[in-house]
Amino acid sequence: MIPGWGPTDRAGLHPLPGGVTATPGFRASGVVSGVKPSGRPDLALVVAETPASVGVVTTTNLVKAPACVVAERHAARGQARAVVVNAGNANVCTAEGEDHAERLARAAAHELGLEPDAVLPMSTGVIGVPLPIERIEAAMPQAAAALSPDGGHDAATAILTTDTVTKEVAFEVTDERGGRCVVAGMAKGVGMIEPAMATLLVVLTTDAPLNKALLKQLLRDAVGCTFNRISVDGDGSTSDTVALLATGTAEQPPGLDVVATGLHAVCADLARAVVADGEGATRVAGVTVRGAETEGDAEQLARSVATSLLVRAAIHGGDPNWGRILMALGNAGVDFDVRRVSVACGDVTVCRFGVATSFDRAMAANAMRRDEVTIDVDLGVGSAAATVLTCDLTPEYVRFNAEYTT
Amino acid sequence: MIPGWGPTDRAGLHPLPGGVTATPGFRASGVVSGVKPSGRPDLALVVAETPASVGVVTTTNLVKAPACVVAERHAARGQARAVVVNAGNANVCTAEGEDHAERLARAAAHELGLEPDAVLPMSTGVIGVPLPIERIEAAMPQAAAALSPDGGHDAATAILTTDTVTKEVAFEVTDERGGRCVVAGMAKGVGMIEPAMATLLVVLTTDAPLNKALLKQLLRDAVGCTFNRISVDGDGSTSDTVALLATGTAEQPPGLDVVATGLHAVCADLARAVVADGEGATRVAGVTVRGAETEGDAEQLARSVATSLLVRAAIHGGDPNWGRILMALGNAGVDFDVRRVSVACGDVTVCRFGVATSFDRAMAANAMRRDEVTIDVDLGVGSAAATVLTCDLTPEYVRFNAEYTT
Repeated sequence: MIPGWGPTDRAGLHPLPGGVTATPGFRASGVVSGVKPSGRPDLALVVAETPASVGVVTTTNLVKAPACVVAERHAARGQARAVVVNAGNANVCTAEGEDHAERLARAAAHELGLEPDAVLPMSTGVIGVPLPIERIEAAMPQAAAALSPDGGHDAATAILTTDTVTKEVAFEVTDERGGRCVVAGMAKGVGMIEPAMATLLVVLTTDAPLNKALLKQLLRDAVGCTFNRISVDGDGSTSDTVALLATGTAEQPPGLDVVATGLHAVCADLARAVVADGEGATRVAGVTVRGAETEGDAEQLARSVATSLLVRAAIHGGDPNWGRILMALGNAGVDFDVRRVSVACGDVTVCRFGVATSFDRAMAANAMRRDEVTIDVDLGVGSAAATVLTCDLTPEYVRFNAEYTT
Repeated sequence: MIPGWGPTDRAGLHPLPGGVTATPGFRASGVVSGVKPSGRPDLALVVAETPASVGVVTTTNLVKAPACVVAERHAARGQARAVVVNAGNANVCTAEGEDHAERLARAAAHELGLEPDAVLPMSTGVIGVPLPIERIEAAMPQAAAALSPDGGHDAATAILTTDTVTKEVAFEVTDERGGRCVVAGMAKGVGMIEPAMATLLVVLTTDAPLNKALLKQLLRDAVGCTFNRISVDGDGSTSDTVALLATGTAEQPPGLDVVATGLHAVCADLARAVVADGEGATRVAGVTVRGAETEGDAEQLARSVATSLLVRAAIHGGDPNWGRILMALGNAGVDFDVRRVSVACGDVTVCRFGVATSFDRAMAANAMRRDEVTIDVDLGVGSAAATVLTCDLTPEYVRFNAEYTT
């Protein structure tokens, strides 16, 4: 457990198997369409049996995938029934991009007997190569036929690219008054996709009742302190998308604050799983900045530390190199007084008031060699805090991303 | 030669040997003070025989080295006579920092018979460890005694840390009317210093006559389009410093525009040498963005491409992976129309109007495997351009920065 990551109180959260289909009323499938040259599953469907409120958050990259554009357009009315995902081709920077993204949604809608705008498309994979949409269209009947209340894992498998494991999380969420619902999700995205770039795709499901505005707010809050606070390589994809479908079919749903906690936990655990599976990564690191005047300041400072190549290389080396941490803080573009700054690696305070402590190097090095490394920076001014997750930068990351040649 | 890097017209520039002491009226030395555990030279002096105009540009990192603070204070009056540099210890984040930086300048001033504020101190090396100032003070008589008009190379050697070669550039600068002067310089800084961080230190000398305001302007202009447009790892040091000393002793100096060209060329060549010697680097890459509305936009976009881990890994792999280039452009925070963007790797246009061309992959891969890689992005809108230099990201970089453990 990394302090500061995810909700602090998980008393009402009970882990469930099953991924996205752990939520009652959802079916999913994952099949082979032939887009991935490897012949692995590459086409996933997640379908709600009843109408669902929907919200999406997509990339801020100016070069935005057509699938993101279409998914946002379809989600604009606040209702959807299904998500269709293809892996192996991002359908970005091609002449036919938006047409193909619409055809992807339409093919799924046709098989499911839905209006096209009830389906959100997502695509991940190579950039600049036309999507072989005919193959996907041809495989769609099979994907629809394979839909199952136990299909969450198949779907989570079919959206992977360079990921080494599926990322699935589900909780039954309860409150003291007997309220209960399920919040579940799946994610992919570990740094890079042949031969293009990282893409984060996340599908979340719940049977909690959330109207359009509320869902949007809850989703933004949860994404803001989870998926938006992870970094594998600092390179934001053209295709990042997080979608939440909420059917509202839970018979006696819990209080909204508990639903929000459940959503926060699902996003936090999926985001952690993405970082842990980061290309070449051997450990996860949580950088917490506390004692800041605002949470925005804390996040910006934590992000500067978590994206520094030198800090991430030091984490790989198990090196409590706090000078690099101070350097990265100083580059963040946030004002602070270095004479008030304390830094701890794990439990070992290595710098106090901007100056080295006489810390035990062996203990500090041990703290940097754990599977989960924590770097804690106290600015000594206010009470705001934020945690950003990253992984170590390894020679394997570079080799992987250099040696793959298109 | 990387197009767009350095002055386009070098007709009046004539290379000279000798580094900083190629400029008449300067002496330099480099000796062993014992700060570097390796026993290599680590104390350098550069001294003007006559009063010189001086200007310095230092790091924008909020955690600023005391040597930077003191150098700026001493340079504030616009006159100086000497620069003293110690390598092996950055004198940053220590309780005695500013006192030690003053003592470093004072020790040199004492030996040279100067006022302390006529000497600019620079320090580079480990962070958070008190500077062994007594050793430096004890070695200062030897450094002063070793001063020589041929000492440029010794000084350039003594300021190195993880550099593998010295960086020295000098030109005789002439105009058509018989005017002539010398502009010379030395630099260090290749990514990282045991066990702390990259530091760029540059000392420039000239016998051209430049008053305080003019020198400041020329220095800012030259640094702005050279040292401020290179990136080895995106981690800005606490100690970066560029200092220019101008004695004005040239008998018949050339026109100011020619002096400016000479200064630009010295800075461009030194900056290129720093990148070429970047830790683990096997090739230099120039990223040019042209067709922009403003030079600021062009620089910001070029910097985003040049600091992308995925782009730099692709450069290492010789991979014309233009999808990563588009991704990095899209993340730059600058507005542009992707449907107007063309991208060339070397001479091979790989993307036109935001879509793949049917380029020859072998030719494009060859262009990415040269010692000097050029990536040319045309936004197709305005006429502003900027070039940012970087080097490839290699497993060796990560290994080097991970495996050194304090």
